[in-house]
Amino acid sequence: MTLSSPGPTVGIVGGGQLGRMLGEAAAPLGIDLVVSDPTPECPAFPVVHDQVVGEFDDRETLRELAERAEYLTYEIELADPDVLEAVAEATGTPVHPAPETLRTIQDKLVQKRRLADAGVPVPAFRAVESADDLREACDELGYPAMLKARTGGYDGRGNVPVEGPDDVEAAIDTVAGPAMVEEMVDFERELAVMGCRGDGERATFPVTETVHEEEILREMVAPARASERVREHAREVALEVLDVLDGRGVFGIELFQTGDDRILLNEIAPRPHNSGHWTIEGCHTSQFEQHLRAVTGRPLGPTDQRFPTVSTNILGDVDDRQPATLSGEGPVFETDRAHLHWYGKREVYDLRKMGHVTLTGEDRERLLADARDLRSGLTFRA
Amino acid sequence: MTLSSPGPTVGIVGGGQLGRMLGEAAAPLGIDLVVSDPTPECPAFPVVHDQVVGEFDDRETLRELAERAEYLTYEIELADPDVLEAVAEATGTPVHPAPETLRTIQDKLVQKRRLADAGVPVPAFRAVESADDLREACDELGYPAMLKARTGGYDGRGNVPVEGPDDVEAAIDTVAGPAMVEEMVDFERELAVMGCRGDGERATFPVTETVHEEEILREMVAPARASERVREHAREVALEVLDVLDGRGVFGIELFQTGDDRILLNEIAPRPHNSGHWTIEGCHTSQFEQHLRAVTGRPLGPTDQRFPTVSTNILGDVDDRQPATLSGEGPVFETDRAHLHWYGKREVYDLRKMGHVTLTGEDRERLLADARDLRSGLTFRA
Repeated sequence: MTLSSPGPTVGIVGGGQLGRMLGEAAAPLGIDLVVSDPTPECPAFPVVHDQVVGEFDDRETLRELAERAEYLTYEIELADPDVLEAVAEATGTPVHPAPETLRTIQDKLVQKRRLADAGVPVPAFRAVESADDLREACDELGYPAMLKARTGGYDGRGNVPVEGPDDVEAAIDTVAGPAMVEEMVDFERELAVMGCRGDGERATFPVTETVHEEEILREMVAPARASERVREHAREVALEVLDVLDGRGVFGIELFQTGDDRILLNEIAPRPHNSGHWTIEGCHTSQFEQHLRAVTGRPLGPTDQRFPTVSTNILGDVDDRQPATLSGEGPVFETDRAHLHWYGKREVYDLRKMGHVTLTGEDRERLLADARDLRSGLTFRA
Repeated sequence: MTLSSPGPTVGIVGGGQLGRMLGEAAAPLGIDLVVSDPTPECPAFPVVHDQVVGEFDDRETLRELAERAEYLTYEIELADPDVLEAVAEATGTPVHPAPETLRTIQDKLVQKRRLADAGVPVPAFRAVESADDLREACDELGYPAMLKARTGGYDGRGNVPVEGPDDVEAAIDTVAGPAMVEEMVDFERELAVMGCRGDGERATFPVTETVHEEEILREMVAPARASERVREHAREVALEVLDVLDGRGVFGIELFQTGDDRILLNEIAPRPHNSGHWTIEGCHTSQFEQHLRAVTGRPLGPTDQRFPTVSTNILGDVDDRQPATLSGEGPVFETDRAHLHWYGKREVYDLRKMGHVTLTGEDRERLLADARDLRSGLTFRA
């Protein structure tokens, strides 16, 4: 294995914050990145070698990306697996994780079926194509239930709770397309595991506790405040999930811990994931370095944790889309072991992910309180 | 204080490995970097927003850099303090550290005089303009002594040992310009302290032990394997040095620990320094983040150490200048808690600094042995 200079080059479909943090991780490894993104000077732009401007599913854009790279990957599920496959075949540039894995994950119904067939514990679910389907499914699963668009949803978009029979028609209208419905899991805690598939090896990062509000991820606590037994069980489920997937890379594996300590799979992301951002400071290898190691066929790095760690997202708090100017970040710089991660987005809108803050220390409760304090001082309002 | 997106922008004179590692540190902070460097696609290029191609002392280049930035700094002593001052005045963009500090440091004789006048302990030294001067000085200081070019030397270049009277003529010829001579310090250990001057605050990183061979820095051990008393004394000397300097930033302060545990100042670099690269993994704030915090007037970050840490430089091992292809780095990726830092230089020549490897752990002797093992497997030879 030789490390040329520059190179190897990895092409990434998508140049948002994940591409940006991949860029921060790539340079020390001697890996050059080229991203494709429709937005000129996308968030990743300042820390990657170059950007090809074009849509995520545009064949010519991806072909150019593939021709400039030794490996291709993606940081957004909107990438098109058919185009990725075609481009990989035409150029000989391998894609990781496998486009087939992306195809499986993109359709939440296919994803759940595949996992259930493989024996991974998942919430009860049914395919739904009409209001009648949904009514019938909810009679079996019970109310409340969660209706989910099969494709295109992220950050909770495309998910509609169905509280009772009166909600059925409106929910179907909101989702407006192929859907599935799941039992509403009465969870004790939401957990996430960053799973890693390397060249003939697998690994998991320590189990993260994820705190959502209005279906948006707000905070991550690592290790999760669950018993060691529960965390070990979550890790085992994550390894079962990895067995179902194909190709190399890191995967965000979101889980429910139920009131009776069962673990149920919620969703998978075939890429670095918000729930793993804390690994940059919290682990000896970050999820971003790990993804690049995996994609380029290098050995996986150690996933053990350096310190108890809490991260909080910085979300847009404005009503209208507008130029992004953050204020109140002074205390972040004044707080020992608080680390700002700014995503470089020029515009902010309500709930847009604009950055995150990570704190490391000893006591997770204290870290979480401090993180919330710091976040409460941050605003994009004038 | 508001954090616009993008911005603030910092202009850096020089885009070598220090500029590259500043780029890796800048993006999370929301700081955009523009560098100036005569080499197109310089090492920093992939991780900074833009590069102005031009010589380090070219007024038009620096003017463009200053016009695009809210703050100006430099990562190379070849920057010209007169040009920096003129550009700062013309554009209103402040330069940190102060050009006057750079001017003082660039001339080793002026540097030593200034420090000695301020009461900082330094080796005995004399100005030298001729062979007669040198002979006379060595009669006082004793042989061996170290003749140093007053300007332009780095990585030991421009330093010539004078073993006895017979070496005098040759040494003067080698240095070929204004010089100074110092007593040859019979040191027990070489130490370095990264000193930080912020906006009304000072800080020091833990004392590093630096291991040189043929006057090139090979390894860094942190904390230094010196007694706590010696380390505290080194820290005090570093703080005295900081008092002599002007402007904000981090400073590499190289010291000798003598056989009788005195601390003598060797040299200062007004910028992040090779002896502080280990802080990226080893401390809660890296020297690169700290430099950017200081230059932009943000609070300094905590300098405490995360783990005992050893770094080793990866140096060119080829006779002729040639395209750089490293081999043997597989074991670096296979070693837990070993971190590669590649500088992205396209060409290698003998002893050129091409990258470094940092290991964190518990036992410094073990880390140093592992670092040497890993380095011995690395080569640029075909």
